[in-house]
Amino acid sequence: MRNVRIVVTNCNTTREMTEEIVRGARAAAGPGTAVTGLTPAWGPESAESWLDSYLSATAVMDALRTYDGPPYDAVVMAGFGEHGREGVRELVDVPVVDITEAAAHLACLLGRRYGVVTTLERSCGQIEDSLELAGVGRNCAAVVGTGLGVLDLGDSGRTQAAFLAAAERARQAGAEVLVLGCAGMTGLQRTVEDKLGLPVVDGVGAAVKLAEGLVGLGLTTSRAGSFAKPEPKGRTWRPARTDGPGPSVP
Amino acid sequence: MRNVRIVVTNCNTTREMTEEIVRGARAAAGPGTAVTGLTPAWGPESAESWLDSYLSATAVMDALRTYDGPPYDAVVMAGFGEHGREGVRELVDVPVVDITEAAAHLACLLGRRYGVVTTLERSCGQIEDSLELAGVGRNCAAVVGTGLGVLDLGDSGRTQAAFLAAAERARQAGAEVLVLGCAGMTGLQRTVEDKLGLPVVDGVGAAVKLAEGLVGLGLTTSRAGSFAKPEPKGRTWRPARTDGPGPSVP
Amino acid sequence: MRNVRIVVTNCNTTREMTEEIVRGARAAAGPGTAVTGLTPAWGPESAESWLDSYLSATAVMDALRTYDGPPYDAVVMAGFGEHGREGVRELVDVPVVDITEAAAHLACLLGRRYGVVTTLERSCGQIEDSLELAGVGRNCAAVVGTGLGVLDLGDSGRTQAAFLAAAERARQAGAEVLVLGCAGMTGLQRTVEDKLGLPVVDGVGAAVKLAEGLVGLGLTTSRAGSFAKPEPKGRTWRPARTDGPGPSVP
Amino acid sequence: MRNVRIVVTNCNTTREMTEEIVRGARAAAGPGTAVTGLTPAWGPESAESWLDSYLSATAVMDALRTYDGPPYDAVVMAGFGEHGREGVRELVDVPVVDITEAAAHLACLLGRRYGVVTTLERSCGQIEDSLELAGVGRNCAAVVGTGLGVLDLGDSGRTQAAFLAAAERARQAGAEVLVLGCAGMTGLQRTVEDKLGLPVVDGVGAAVKLAEGLVGLGLTTSRAGSFAKPEPKGRTWRPARTDGPGPSVP
Amino acid sequence: MRNVRIVVTNCNTTREMTEEIVRGARAAAGPGTAVTGLTPAWGPESAESWLDSYLSATAVMDALRTYDGPPYDAVVMAGFGEHGREGVRELVDVPVVDITEAAAHLACLLGRRYGVVTTLERSCGQIEDSLELAGVGRNCAAVVGTGLGVLDLGDSGRTQAAFLAAAERARQAGAEVLVLGCAGMTGLQRTVEDKLGLPVVDGVGAAVKLAEGLVGLGLTTSRAGSFAKPEPKGRTWRPARTDGPGPSVP
Amino acid sequence: MRNVRIVVTNCNTTREMTEEIVRGARAAAGPGTAVTGLTPAWGPESAESWLDSYLSATAVMDALRTYDGPPYDAVVMAGFGEHGREGVRELVDVPVVDITEAAAHLACLLGRRYGVVTTLERSCGQIEDSLELAGVGRNCAAVVGTGLGVLDLGDSGRTQAAFLAAAERARQAGAEVLVLGCAGMTGLQRTVEDKLGLPVVDGVGAAVKLAEGLVGLGLTTSRAGSFAKPEPKGRTWRPARTDGPGPSVP
Repeated sequence: MRNVRIVVTNCNTTREMTEEIVRGARAAAGPGTAVTGLTPAWGPESAESWLDSYLSATAVMDALRTYDGPPYDAVVMAGFGEHGREGVRELVDVPVVDITEAAAHLACLLGRRYGVVTTLERSCGQIEDSLELAGVGRNCAAVVGTGLGVLDLGDSGRTQAAFLAAAERARQAGAEVLVLGCAGMTGLQRTVEDKLGLPVVDGVGAAVKLAEGLVGLGLTTSRAGSFAKPEPKGRTWRPARTDGPGPSVP
Repeated sequence: MRNVRIVVTNCNTTREMTEEIVRGARAAAGPGTAVTGLTPAWGPESAESWLDSYLSATAVMDALRTYDGPPYDAVVMAGFGEHGREGVRELVDVPVVDITEAAAHLACLLGRRYGVVTTLERSCGQIEDSLELAGVGRNCAAVVGTGLGVLDLGDSGRTQAAFLAAAERARQAGAEVLVLGCAGMTGLQRTVEDKLGLPVVDGVGAAVKLAEGLVGLGLTTSRAGSFAKPEPKGRTWRPARTDGPGPSVP
Repeated sequence: MRNVRIVVTNCNTTREMTEEIVRGARAAAGPGTAVTGLTPAWGPESAESWLDSYLSATAVMDALRTYDGPPYDAVVMAGFGEHGREGVRELVDVPVVDITEAAAHLACLLGRRYGVVTTLERSCGQIEDSLELAGVGRNCAAVVGTGLGVLDLGDSGRTQAAFLAAAERARQAGAEVLVLGCAGMTGLQRTVEDKLGLPVVDGVGAAVKLAEGLVGLGLTTSRAGSFAKPEPKGRTWRPARTDGPGPSVP
Repeated sequence: MRNVRIVVTNCNTTREMTEEIVRGARAAAGPGTAVTGLTPAWGPESAESWLDSYLSATAVMDALRTYDGPPYDAVVMAGFGEHGREGVRELVDVPVVDITEAAAHLACLLGRRYGVVTTLERSCGQIEDSLELAGVGRNCAAVVGTGLGVLDLGDSGRTQAAFLAAAERARQAGAEVLVLGCAGMTGLQRTVEDKLGLPVVDGVGAAVKLAEGLVGLGLTTSRAGSFAKPEPKGRTWRPARTDGPGPSVP
Repeated sequence: MRNVRIVVTNCNTTREMTEEIVRGARAAAGPGTAVTGLTPAWGPESAESWLDSYLSATAVMDALRTYDGPPYDAVVMAGFGEHGREGVRELVDVPVVDITEAAAHLACLLGRRYGVVTTLERSCGQIEDSLELAGVGRNCAAVVGTGLGVLDLGDSGRTQAAFLAAAERARQAGAEVLVLGCAGMTGLQRTVEDKLGLPVVDGVGAAVKLAEGLVGLGLTTSRAGSFAKPEPKGRTWRPARTDGPGPSVP
Repeated sequence: MRNVRIVVTNCNTTREMTEEIVRGARAAAGPGTAVTGLTPAWGPESAESWLDSYLSATAVMDALRTYDGPPYDAVVMAGFGEHGREGVRELVDVPVVDITEAAAHLACLLGRRYGVVTTLERSCGQIEDSLELAGVGRNCAAVVGTGLGVLDLGDSGRTQAAFLAAAERARQAGAEVLVLGCAGMTGLQRTVEDKLGLPVVDGVGAAVKLAEGLVGLGLTTSRAGSFAKPEPKGRTWRPARTDGPGPSVP
């Protein structure tokens, strides 16, 4: 069996988060799997709104479109609840696994209903939509926010307490399995698992395993119908205007 | 009653299409309504795939973010089935109406089931998803493609024949009302209506009327929950790389 | 643009309520719109049950069937959650907008989930059914009763407190936008809006705007399928028995 | 076990149809069951549209409200797909079974999916709505029209051919059991059954059996929530205007 | 009308429970109905898990397959939420009614939403699945567990209190009618009914009435599609291994 | 990374089919994975009905309950559309993957809609139910039968033609990815893939990959709620009657 080379795309421009995600991906990967992280050259520093999510989707597509590193066998998209997976499926010729759907697919195998615990409450709707369109929304009992932003997750005590409280709410809503609705939180997974006695699925690990599985089976995205190659046409990926890039509040 | 100023955003970079959309919007607008077209400075020349759609969503958000024209009271997003409406709702302080949902909202008032006829078959799934998330998918009997690309619509005889055939399929699936699933086709509307004897809703006109209605009632997007203002944070809307823009196949 | 003449039908026989509804409709109407109120000659003095609702539906159809005033361009049916809209669509040749569906259509444009606050708890189910069949139930987070009857709404302090409490429950269930599930409450709309910081949609205003929109676009009910003209046949709209009419508890 | 006295309400004013329905009901009834037919004093001569259906619902409620015959233990409402059952549930103190839902309840016990064959195509949507709200829409594979009006059913050869063709379409859509979507067609039931080899459920018979069952178990409609007694209030069941009744095209 | 002979199958091997079920069935049965109880020769002593449920399904099929008593006209399957009804429908030539679906079918006729109160919490999911597949899940407001095992129901005071508490939770979730989600609890039915003022449906009684109804109407399971006779083929219903049978923890 | 030991359970007693399944599983397995086949000691020689399916479920549970071979890390249940997975999840302490759900989970990652092609038409409903309860029914466009029985699959020309025809029907219903709804058909997978140009997912391979993934991530079935260990109690897994086992038509 040949090795599997996975590119994991961060959904934001924060390189530390890419590194954390790559660490998680490597911890999950089988012995023959190589993981490369890809940080978009532009986009939001963290994705926590629909605006961020569409911005991120385009920046990730641009990163893959202009990628010129070594070949790869699969893409893992590591933005929980973020948009873009269908576009990437059109763009590349290898299987694409988004961590949102990946976590849900595995969670469905572990209990009759699963729940998602995520960062800000405002992200819950976006995650629900993502699960629904991925075809795995039916057995989702609840998506619960912790009130913490992605960049607040550094304080591990506070993070842990907030996730435990949210997880408890998901359990009361019927969840028998939990999904961590955020990339880059591998440590948290075991803590929640131990405290609550429920299996906890991390999307990055789940996506790596699904990507390995698809590659191992020789399967890739269908070109019939929805995810055909984009039509050849004029597309401008960046504006002609010359004012410089840079951080901006919209 | 004060005048209503509507910005209509094209989802692609083709200015002729913006002009066509603006003509349709003005034909639908009330006497006190002013319509301004906005063409994104970048993005696809037509949007016909998920890749195009995410690219378009970000380009449209960027166009509105950097817009410095006269003030406006509402935004109409004129990309049928394209992404981005939630992001624009977060971004601006005025009501936002997407032509996909607009057409469906009005169609629901005119018959028990409606159908959508659109351009390429590959767009059908994207439209279905858009209607579903907008909350108006239930009474959609069918979304039917004509096999024509957005930029092929110039040949009016062929376009008309293809739309009539697709409309007939939608009717057989139970549609009592038709939605034209494409911007910039105002002429086609009356033809299909006459030939098939079904009301035909054009999304641009529908959205203009809904925008006028919301402005007239003093209503705008809720900031509670999903569509709160995006968090202030670093966001790069264009890459630091200096290679020039231009048409490119992904 | 020609003027729009809207007939607004009250669902009950209480003329004060018709007047209140007409005031609300006129406040929402555009400058070129004329609003006429129509009070059924028979039916319930307020509609708060399925029995009332079917009685109301027939009385409203009878009122429109025997209407001999000046011509009109659209009908607005001002009974929140009440039956009859499909029958009226069959009966008249102009567009028909029911305030239940109208409020929901606009609410869908203002947030990801909306909630309805209404009078008696017993009406909640009827409203849910009405929204579902109108095709806009998906994004309804909750329909919440206040425990107040239609004719108890005179006491504005108590009404306001009850609606605020119900609105808070709807918000906790996920509503980002509120719909006032009762005609004739225009004043309440701003109060709830101010106290809770959520957009509040009043059905009468929403329906007037949708009716203006449909008329402006030249659209009316499809005659294909469900809402064809009723077959010519014998119909008795009132009994041959000669015992007098009058108030009666069923 | 005491006898069961069932009032069967026709949904229209055609007495011959009431008699036919009563014959069907008696054929289905157990030995201890007495069946009385009730023809509304007003309403449509046949119900084939939403307008007819609401008119029928009110006329049937009026007939039961003013009924002064011997006591009864249950009501069977014999209008397939017609409105009114919730109102009648509020009105009377005995169990109420509508033939639409009754047929579907029994059909669910006889196969994984059932189909309905009815008269005019225009009635299909109304039947679908009725099944959905009754809570038995899930396993309905199709509702198929024959193109025949209620009053055309006299020609038995043509009727039979039309129903067989419609039944075949329902079977191809997955129906394993058929429901006759029209009252007063008992003879047709056996013919379709024999020709197609599928069980055929007649709504009148089904409703009689369900009514007997509910009475036998001492069960009646819940007064908690939706179907509480209507509030005492002024209701006018017939107009004060003195122009005579009579057949009229709306 | 000829007599109806019903075989009621217990889902477990506890004969006392078969007797209790038969008592309930006889109390519900009409004067011309004879009820025979059938206890599987093997299987679980009570069914409270998916493992138990599949074991029970097969043991019940085996009991009916090898049944050599007098002929019967219908089968009532008296395991609330247990599997097997589709298999029994394939196996026998008479109508088959499962108490889970039966209770729900009648409950749908008595209120807009019903709730189920059952024994262990772990059974709730299985019951929800059973109702969903039977086509009657839509109007189920809640399935609530009491925390009591089937074999703990002997303590009537504790049982009653637990069921009342669970019933109250179901009512708060919107239930207007209650279903007792457990066989052999006829006494409890009246107590809950009296205390809560809601109709309470017992599955065994409901199934007996539905079975009587189907037999009375000459209806039985469709052989077209899902429930055709099983193909003739080799099937081993018991293992060749000779180690003795007996109670075992899995 | 330690090796993964998977037990693959055939759903029937035909050892040749177990061998074929094991071959398919080994072809899909990673280098460190060991696959052992388990044939039930009793049950149907092929599973093609609900009766067979429940019989199979119990026989498979019995086989695992009495299994005394070397330890294993996961169970793959190789009966497409067959019952039992929830019972096995309760029974064993390792992750359990059913090939039906497994194929659907992977198919969801490869296209917007998938379709299933299976053997007999009568199995389609059972497969639909299985997908629905597994939480992956939403994106299933169609389940199509070929008319061939499990044991007819030996004739490869006829089998191939029948599967291609069924696959074409699934594609016309919107499937962009195909699932082979039958175990033991690895050869067929590539043929259909080549002829139709759609990815084809084989359930056995998919389940092996998912089982490897779950084991690799240290995840197993939740014991909270539905899939808790079965209560200790008396269970008889085989009848006390002494008449010999053997093939029998039910």
